[in-house]
Amino acid sequence: MFTKETYINRRKRLKSKLDKGIALIMGNVDASMNYPQNTYHFRQDSTFLYFFGLDHAGLAGLIDFESGEEMLFGDDFTMDDIIWMGPQPKLKENAEKVGINQSYPLSNLNKVIQKALSQGRTIHFTPPYRGKNMIAMGALLNLHPAKVKDQASTELIKACVALRSVKEPCEIEEMERHMATAYAMHTTAMKMAHPGKTEQEITGALEGISMSGGGIVSFPIICSIHGETLHNHYHGNTLQQGDLLLVDAGSESPLHYATDNTRTSPVGGQFTQKQKEIYQIVVNTNNKALAATKPGITYKEVHLLACKTMAAGLKDLGLMKGDMDEAVAQGAHALFMPHGLGHMIGLDVHDMEDYDQQLVGYDDEVRPSSQFGLSALRMGRKLETHFVVTNEPGIYFIPALIDQWKKTGKFADFINYPQVESYKNFGGIRLEDDILVTETGSRILGKRIPINPEDVEQMVKSGC
Amino acid sequence: MFTKETYINRRKRLKSKLDKGIALIMGNVDASMNYPQNTYHFRQDSTFLYFFGLDHAGLAGLIDFESGEEMLFGDDFTMDDIIWMGPQPKLKENAEKVGINQSYPLSNLNKVIQKALSQGRTIHFTPPYRGKNMIAMGALLNLHPAKVKDQASTELIKACVALRSVKEPCEIEEMERHMATAYAMHTTAMKMAHPGKTEQEITGALEGISMSGGGIVSFPIICSIHGETLHNHYHGNTLQQGDLLLVDAGSESPLHYATDNTRTSPVGGQFTQKQKEIYQIVVNTNNKALAATKPGITYKEVHLLACKTMAAGLKDLGLMKGDMDEAVAQGAHALFMPHGLGHMIGLDVHDMEDYDQQLVGYDDEVRPSSQFGLSALRMGRKLETHFVVTNEPGIYFIPALIDQWKKTGKFADFINYPQVESYKNFGGIRLEDDILVTETGSRILGKRIPINPEDVEQMVKSGC
Repeated sequence: MFTKETYINRRKRLKSKLDKGIALIMGNVDASMNYPQNTYHFRQDSTFLYFFGLDHAGLAGLIDFESGEEMLFGDDFTMDDIIWMGPQPKLKENAEKVGINQSYPLSNLNKVIQKALSQGRTIHFTPPYRGKNMIAMGALLNLHPAKVKDQASTELIKACVALRSVKEPCEIEEMERHMATAYAMHTTAMKMAHPGKTEQEITGALEGISMSGGGIVSFPIICSIHGETLHNHYHGNTLQQGDLLLVDAGSESPLHYATDNTRTSPVGGQFTQKQKEIYQIVVNTNNKALAATKPGITYKEVHLLACKTMAAGLKDLGLMKGDMDEAVAQGAHALFMPHGLGHMIGLDVHDMEDYDQQLVGYDDEVRPSSQFGLSALRMGRKLETHFVVTNEPGIYFIPALIDQWKKTGKFADFINYPQVESYKNFGGIRLEDDILVTETGSRILGKRIPINPEDVEQMVKSGC
Repeated sequence: MFTKETYINRRKRLKSKLDKGIALIMGNVDASMNYPQNTYHFRQDSTFLYFFGLDHAGLAGLIDFESGEEMLFGDDFTMDDIIWMGPQPKLKENAEKVGINQSYPLSNLNKVIQKALSQGRTIHFTPPYRGKNMIAMGALLNLHPAKVKDQASTELIKACVALRSVKEPCEIEEMERHMATAYAMHTTAMKMAHPGKTEQEITGALEGISMSGGGIVSFPIICSIHGETLHNHYHGNTLQQGDLLLVDAGSESPLHYATDNTRTSPVGGQFTQKQKEIYQIVVNTNNKALAATKPGITYKEVHLLACKTMAAGLKDLGLMKGDMDEAVAQGAHALFMPHGLGHMIGLDVHDMEDYDQQLVGYDDEVRPSSQFGLSALRMGRKLETHFVVTNEPGIYFIPALIDQWKKTGKFADFINYPQVESYKNFGGIRLEDDILVTETGSRILGKRIPINPEDVEQMVKSGC
């Protein structure tokens, strides 16, 4: 359970990792949609949530690594705010909820920062990703808004990554609990996968389930009969018998932990033989990766194992040829899976991606690759107990990519282009679970969403 | 129907209103939620939508009022974009769809603007409201990002307001068509207004219906048993018998026109006598305002008429006393309705609020008031045929406001405080329709969502 101590301890552990300077941890403000006051759903900054836990706009936190002081900055509500937004706890009360004794009006933040700067002290911060925080931080730090992110603190980032990568029991519990919403979203999508339904309708239903389950979607829903487009946000198609519907969707828990799952269903409830063959390779790959995931192995190794499993399956179908170890080493399989096996997940669906993908997914031992496909692997480093990662192999037939490779005869020793041509209208299949690295291996968080082809077919049919 | 000519004509009419300088009309970029690549639903800038119609991120338009030239700036997709986001039309093809013959890479925009600035030409723009556009425009215009909005062009704003205030037939058609989604949202909320349901569940269902109907919600949904908080975004309560559920919710049409309606339902399906009495005053006020709305009258006059109707009703119930004309003139009724009767609606739910509320809702003839309550009226000026406005009277019992006024004996000649005290836990009721000013009067857009108390009770009960 999350308590006041959860946040006190996190800040204490952060303080044990840095000993000079001050961390400035900016909360988010409301994000304007089409005019200043019409805002998107408020989403607090994840670093602020992690250390300060408060889920309101217009706050900032300071942690002084020398004096040990912790301060919260924000403004109390006026009568006008109360009329429009309702009665709210005072800043001081909110601060106390997360164990902070010093709270001040937001206007004081500038004075405190300017004083520290005048004393030559280092202000540590993570890179801002919203324009308004860039502008606010630029003003605080005497930097041009567009340049603030260049001055982000690698030391602070590394400390945050070290803490946030290993999920605490309360985090695992929160993530696991919210998997019920993920399950409801994906089984609903399966039940709706019938001819005549539209991608937009299904997307709308899933957004509603996410919201009812506690929070907004954790990323824009991918719900498409063109699964070969990896991040397809177009929802204008009507489902037809024979289509494959790929749904990659997740939800934020009440405390903003993300889920991220993908399932691919046969529209109408029956895979064709061709679909089932490819589908089965992806299931096998997913299971193989899950079984290999354990503390001590690098996720790059698991990725490569998954790619080899997939390539072997594709060879059996005559889509690839030659030595599959060599094909994967050279990156030929990336024609079919041009992305990585997975990424960290936690308060962000791509956890901590605002910091720096290399500092999150790589380290001195495992370095990022520049090879097409492998370069898209977000998480390569060694797994530790209580990391949570996604396991999301996929096979896609991307017409533009096939044409491009075929034209230059790329990897012609490994790819059977005439056979690939006959799959050009196939689409794509991805199957994704969120998995927890345990002390001895790994396990799927929550009840597994139906994945075996027969179970998926049955779930689709049950929605008839 | 919206065609290429719709956009050509709009730009032509804009060009007829200005004769010097260049309009820079920035499209929006994706808005980052919790890290750069994890974005909210894309929402194009309304001014860009109005004149350029293209619904993608990363575009900008220029209109040269001297040469008459129109240019579109943006970047074509790369192979990497195609793999992740799917095949997309070329910029040139998109430009042609809206009648633009000159299209260039985004990087050219800076050169064109710098050249114009060096020639001493005026660059007209509307005030940016998103941080990233402030930064981008600051770089283009050699201004500090936070200062860009101070240089917005009143001339351009006035021209845009003149055009956008009067809805074209294709806009009225689009708005009216999308009212079916608004109807579905509000009748669903009524059917769900039963003890044990949560505000969050209902909100989720409505978001899903909006999305399935074409677009995101047009503003954050207000769905609360505390209707006395005007813009309540807290959805943590469970409904109980006897509560009033206030739902103020709208949806964006496929072309991003907004709906905005409010209904208040008795949880369980039966108003108490006390609730019905207040409810009936609000219905009467709404109907009276609708009947008075016509070309030539100012919306301030309609607002004041509504306030008098409401005050008379409150006097009948013993909540107010004395001369109601005088009470409304002095602003005593604002204890119960501290907001305005309505606002313009179109591509934005508060249409054009990014420009400047005074230039949208007021003019030389009708000036904004500083009186509490009346000062919150967003739209005061004279109505013209094919304006679309909201009609949203409400009665609220706001404990903090009642306490504040009572303490100082404010308007004690008009307010019967002992009687008001007995309503302190009442909550709030608001009833809102979107109305079109016709040539001779006004009418509600779309089929009217049930509003008479018996019809609402029946709708609630039908969801049992």
